Amino acid sequence: MVTPTPPSFEDLLARRAAEIEDELARLLGEIPADREIVRPKQLLAAMRHGVFNGGKRIRPFLVLESAALFGHAGPEALRVAAALECVHCYSLIHDDLPAMDDDDMRRGQPTVHRAFDEATAILAGDSLLTLAFDVVAEPPPAGRDAAGAARRQLELTRGLARAAGLGGMAGGQALDLAAERETPDEAGIITLQAMKTGALIRFACEAGAIVADAARDDRERLAEFGSAIGLAFQLADDLLDVTASAEAMGKATGKDAAAGKATLVALHGADWARRQLSGLVDQAHALLEPYGDRAATLKAAASFIAERRS
Amino acid sequence: MVTPTPPSFEDLLARRAAEIEDELARLLGEIPADREIVRPKQLLAAMRHGVFNGGKRIRPFLVLESAALFGHAGPEALRVAAALECVHCYSLIHDDLPAMDDDDMRRGQPTVHRAFDEATAILAGDSLLTLAFDVVAEPPPAGRDAAGAARRQLELTRGLARAAGLGGMAGGQALDLAAERETPDEAGIITLQAMKTGALIRFACEAGAIVADAARDDRERLAEFGSAIGLAFQLADDLLDVTASAEAMGKATGKDAAAGKATLVALHGADWARRQLSGLVDQAHALLEPYGDRAATLKAAASFIAERRS
Repeated sequence: MVTPTPPSFEDLLARRAAEIEDELARLLGEIPADREIVRPKQLLAAMRHGVFNGGKRIRPFLVLESAALFGHAGPEALRVAAALECVHCYSLIHDDLPAMDDDDMRRGQPTVHRAFDEATAILAGDSLLTLAFDVVAEPPPAGRDAAGAARRQLELTRGLARAAGLGGMAGGQALDLAAERETPDEAGIITLQAMKTGALIRFACEAGAIVADAARDDRERLAEFGSAIGLAFQLADDLLDVTASAEAMGKATGKDAAAGKATLVALHGADWARRQLSGLVDQAHALLEPYGDRAATLKAAASFIAERRS
Repeated sequence: MVTPTPPSFEDLLARRAAEIEDELARLLGEIPADREIVRPKQLLAAMRHGVFNGGKRIRPFLVLESAALFGHAGPEALRVAAALECVHCYSLIHDDLPAMDDDDMRRGQPTVHRAFDEATAILAGDSLLTLAFDVVAEPPPAGRDAAGAARRQLELTRGLARAAGLGGMAGGQALDLAAERETPDEAGIITLQAMKTGALIRFACEAGAIVADAARDDRERLAEFGSAIGLAFQLADDLLDVTASAEAMGKATGKDAAAGKATLVALHGADWARRQLSGLVDQAHALLEPYGDRAATLKAAASFIAERRS
């Protein structure tokens, strides 16, 4: 008898990405069955361009796996996962704008304002951000625990708003732009990264636990896990900007150094960053120890994030 | 004995505006007591610039008065009203951007991207939009009807997202920009205006009824009232663009005609528009007939919107 090879982490990630993209396609479909509204074609096309961009869907993956850790595998988690990805894609579209990071390419494709125009890119971002809240607040299924479901949805709505807003991604991007004028110190870099990229990754892990109605301790543990891998994600990104080729990344690299941008890698060097990354992965794994083998996939996600090559 | 003069509509509007601005000031305060987050100073200042702009606060006024019609005068309505105003101000900031309507002045003040810079204006809009959902989804007060309160908050979250997103304001703005390239027909103009300005005014009236837990019939009646005054609002705006001075408006006028922009006023003339306005006010008043004198303030609001001079 042949033992089948267990799927690799990349296989699992790709499988989840397909599920998530089905959900996103439903949300951004041409003719939604349940909504009699006018959907301006060009704007919808720009939203789709910004969403179907070959992304790895790491954030929604984290939502689904964190929910699965606590026994939840329903449509609610998939919806929340898709909403998080909408928020992520909105932020990419706005960050790429000429007034912000002024990027022409992302994953080998023209950015939304290059494929369409600036006004359409601004509105596509606005519409994706708004859609995320529409999706998270979808009426709860009628049933025994309708009140609990509504309470959780409100918590998710608020958590998503906090991760995205002034104290999260938007605020982090503002700090990042300010950092080009006035170099922040190490604490400043850590704060801006925790807001700009960390907040949504942290919330992705927490959101899965909320959807699954996990106990408060478990939710906090998953949020901490999210914080650790969020830090790892940014550190890996900064390292890649130094070491990877533009071809592997599908976008310009070496931009940070060229812009004289303060990153922890610029401050402490690549070797320090690699040691730091390895410490963060250990920390993330240790946080999941109580869940034993059930947390294998999330542990693999932490390693993947730290070791990714693109 | 002297009978005190009843307050005029303008007095009531100003009084409500003060309440709403207190709530907005709390939300956009420098040091919020309940939130230990880093709030980038310049971004927060830009959000305040976009919000404290001398606006009449008509949309939040409609939320409060519609809630009051059904006996609600609690902090929930004020919170929802402030959230709606955040969404309105976000849309003004983004619509004013160079890539969109390219306006330098609003109510006699420099627009946000002129007072700050484009990147900050984009992020200030993003953050206000996000804040609105944070505010609407604030945890419901513990109490007898916590489940009902949560359900209503979800409905408000979703309604706000629908009014703001692809099928509402953002979609309407996209259609408006497209209209500069290809002139829409009358039906097209009506659709774009119903989305761009109508959707939020309609939802403001409906939201008050939702907050007050009004019966479904009443909610629908208020939404219809909102649709009528939304149409009137846009018609009055288009008329003012033709007839008012830039001084009275605090912004450039005559822009529509100069841009060859299709409006119902351009299509049918000012006299037709005035007759139309008067018909819409009659229709709005008729919808509120069942509520008798209790609806006097909302009726006055309908007249005010149609007759405003700035």
